[in-house]
Amino acid sequence: MSTLPSSSDTPSARLAPVLERIDADLPGALSRLEGLLRIPSISTDPAFAGACREAADWLVADLATLGARAEARPTGGHPMVVAHVDNSGENPAQAPHLLFYGHYDVQPADPLELWDGDPFEPAVIEGPRGPAIRARGANDDKGQLMTFVEAARAWIAVHGALPARVTFLFEGEEECGSPSLLPFLDAHGEELRADLALVCDTDMFDPQTPAITTQLRGLVGEELHVRGPSRDLHSGSFGGAAANPVRALAKALAGLHDERGAVTLRGFYDGVDELPDALRAQWEALPFDAGAFLGGVGLSVPAGEAGRSVLEMLWSRPTCEINGIWGGYTGAGFKTVLPAEAHAKVSFRLVGRQDPDAVRAAFRAQIRAALPADCDVSFTAHGGAPATVMSTDAPAFERARAALSAEWPRPAAFIGSGGSIPIAGLFRERLDMDTLLIGFRNEDDAMHSPNERYDVESFHKGMRSWARILDALSHPVRG
Amino acid sequence: MSTLPSSSDTPSARLAPVLERIDADLPGALSRLEGLLRIPSISTDPAFAGACREAADWLVADLATLGARAEARPTGGHPMVVAHVDNSGENPAQAPHLLFYGHYDVQPADPLELWDGDPFEPAVIEGPRGPAIRARGANDDKGQLMTFVEAARAWIAVHGALPARVTFLFEGEEECGSPSLLPFLDAHGEELRADLALVCDTDMFDPQTPAITTQLRGLVGEELHVRGPSRDLHSGSFGGAAANPVRALAKALAGLHDERGAVTLRGFYDGVDELPDALRAQWEALPFDAGAFLGGVGLSVPAGEAGRSVLEMLWSRPTCEINGIWGGYTGAGFKTVLPAEAHAKVSFRLVGRQDPDAVRAAFRAQIRAALPADCDVSFTAHGGAPATVMSTDAPAFERARAALSAEWPRPAAFIGSGGSIPIAGLFRERLDMDTLLIGFRNEDDAMHSPNERYDVESFHKGMRSWARILDALSHPVRG
Repeated sequence: MSTLPSSSDTPSARLAPVLERIDADLPGALSRLEGLLRIPSISTDPAFAGACREAADWLVADLATLGARAEARPTGGHPMVVAHVDNSGENPAQAPHLLFYGHYDVQPADPLELWDGDPFEPAVIEGPRGPAIRARGANDDKGQLMTFVEAARAWIAVHGALPARVTFLFEGEEECGSPSLLPFLDAHGEELRADLALVCDTDMFDPQTPAITTQLRGLVGEELHVRGPSRDLHSGSFGGAAANPVRALAKALAGLHDERGAVTLRGFYDGVDELPDALRAQWEALPFDAGAFLGGVGLSVPAGEAGRSVLEMLWSRPTCEINGIWGGYTGAGFKTVLPAEAHAKVSFRLVGRQDPDAVRAAFRAQIRAALPADCDVSFTAHGGAPATVMSTDAPAFERARAALSAEWPRPAAFIGSGGSIPIAGLFRERLDMDTLLIGFRNEDDAMHSPNERYDVESFHKGMRSWARILDALSHPVRG
Repeated sequence: MSTLPSSSDTPSARLAPVLERIDADLPGALSRLEGLLRIPSISTDPAFAGACREAADWLVADLATLGARAEARPTGGHPMVVAHVDNSGENPAQAPHLLFYGHYDVQPADPLELWDGDPFEPAVIEGPRGPAIRARGANDDKGQLMTFVEAARAWIAVHGALPARVTFLFEGEEECGSPSLLPFLDAHGEELRADLALVCDTDMFDPQTPAITTQLRGLVGEELHVRGPSRDLHSGSFGGAAANPVRALAKALAGLHDERGAVTLRGFYDGVDELPDALRAQWEALPFDAGAFLGGVGLSVPAGEAGRSVLEMLWSRPTCEINGIWGGYTGAGFKTVLPAEAHAKVSFRLVGRQDPDAVRAAFRAQIRAALPADCDVSFTAHGGAPATVMSTDAPAFERARAALSAEWPRPAAFIGSGGSIPIAGLFRERLDMDTLLIGFRNEDDAMHSPNERYDVESFHKGMRSWARILDALSHPVRG
């Protein structure tokens, strides 16, 4: 075991061989990632519970090869992987304690017919920027979490140790609302609390510009079931006189937005602030082409609130979206049925100080009020988390920004995210830690969609980025 | 061969022995019906094509015993049975020509496990109102068509002749869309055109009240496919800025009705007339319990246009119904997808002189106009037929009503039907004939369902009803 050289604020001599090791071991790293991608760890579908367990066990076994004390801990749902690697270099007492979080569960893969290959048989394909790994979970989040694991592996291979004390936390329920996460953090706070959390589950700003995400939208998920007649009816016998739950649902959902695209729920915009001037100026300076962004997915007109920029719509304004709807006859041909039931899945992205519970309550009240007599509704909650806004004046943010900027063609940016990563809020609230949200996914990587992929370059330079960040952060970031 | 007594507008002396003959021969009539019911003439399943042929041959042989010139005529599908019985009584030139239509094909019998016995082994069981014949086709339509055949048999047995010239037309494709019917009518119009058509394939108003269905709603079916982004998107990455086809579809569908329940399509109510006062008064006098009708399917409030009675909503007002809707993630759990597509099936029941093509065009135009930029829509047509409204001032309608009223506990009603029976429209359009739609089925007879049945009383009094109607109609209804 070699002795770690001194750390500094600039890329140090100890870093170069780690980067070389990462370059040399790229095929091995890809092969390991493919092993993890083959496990169909779809957390939302109980049929795949065994696969989730298998993915957790795979990570435990892999982390054990780094010398970590690794375990798959049982929860009420899928297991939580926890592993510790102590800093064994110079000044262990002064080295920071970093908590790295990722999730090993993935979204369902349907519609399967739109994939060019088996979602759980990873393949290296030619993507828009060169080779990419195609598989469900390639960028969300297995490929991303492995960039950090592989960076740690390279540090240990070269130096026999990491430059910091690192705790790994891998969740298996991120795609189904993280029901076990909060109880787990509360039960194991002492063990998990670190100086800083690192999370790799976000996007680059663009393929040349790495990003540290400093504000995230929250999320409220709701499923609703509208019931009318006691059985499906024939529209010839009952049409005109009987309540139609699909019609009632369509009307209730149509009322969720006004003509200017604003959400109509009572009190919805309570806690939604305008952007600070400095951040607005930085966002406006970003090389963001709204037309190209929308054009890339076949669209041309921003669909959000009138008078807002696209980056505001995505990062700093709340939304209401219908994620799924179903009811009545949906097969081939025609059936003149008046369905007994209609269903929808609806979600809200939250910003600022919007209260998930208040949004949920306002939604349920508005839907109930919008339904006609003879239509009952029941609701199922699917997770809720407030928005998160980081304090970017902590030194780790600038150090990480410099490290990232050294790896990529363009300087790293502080950006917002339209998505929800509740973990950052929970780390702040429960473990008193800031979180560095750094990821290497690109927006056209088909996250949650058929043919999800991750550029081999994202994977490779992601590993190198984490190696640099570990180096940059490896002296106390507190006190 | 006896000489027919004179016809008149009231039950004549010649009728009484015919009714006695029907009463005496009830066991024989039931036995013949059972013979027809044993043939599994399922028209929609090619495996039963031989059985359809067998049912047609059975009818040809049975009609031949009445002295009819009967044939099973080939079509592109199952055969069409055509038979003629000339009037051989007094004043043959003045006797009316009646065309009786029925269909010998039946619905598939599945799910077989829900039947209490073999669907093609008829059994007399105890039904809700007394003995009933249980078999597939018992009320739709073999039992109903045989009521007329048996009435004719009794007339011929007693008097050696029918009091009218009668043509029988039995179709074998009614349950699979009648593909051969229109070409057959066009090819054989001269042979089939009569003074009046009789059809026995409808319901009683209630078990005590026979009915003549004098207006039928038409139907327009549409399927629509709304497409927005070129692929499913993640609502975290695109939510707020990207068009959501499910939201767009919900809004477009919600706009199809106004706050008073009226359909908003441009020109939709063109050709929709108010009920004639006499018919409105008759409908209002019907022993119809709207609360019980809706309560039977778990509802309590009429859902149609404000200010309309439930019978109007069902029989004389047009509707727009959403029969199915689907889009986005509809599986277990939650997926924050912005779906690329959303779909619906929508149908319109038409009345009066509404034009199916105009309704379809107005629907498509309104949906297109309601969708935002970036949402395209395509449509698939699923059939279209105008409403049928009989001219109930033709003398045959009142004569038949009087004849039916003499047979049953309560006077016969002129009613509407919310459903569509295209044959009546075709007879009007292609053969310039009105149709008397008279049937003896009750609404709880499980038509198209397991344990389909037909009350023995329906069969018996149905035969007697037709004997009375033949008597009542047996002088020229034209000129």
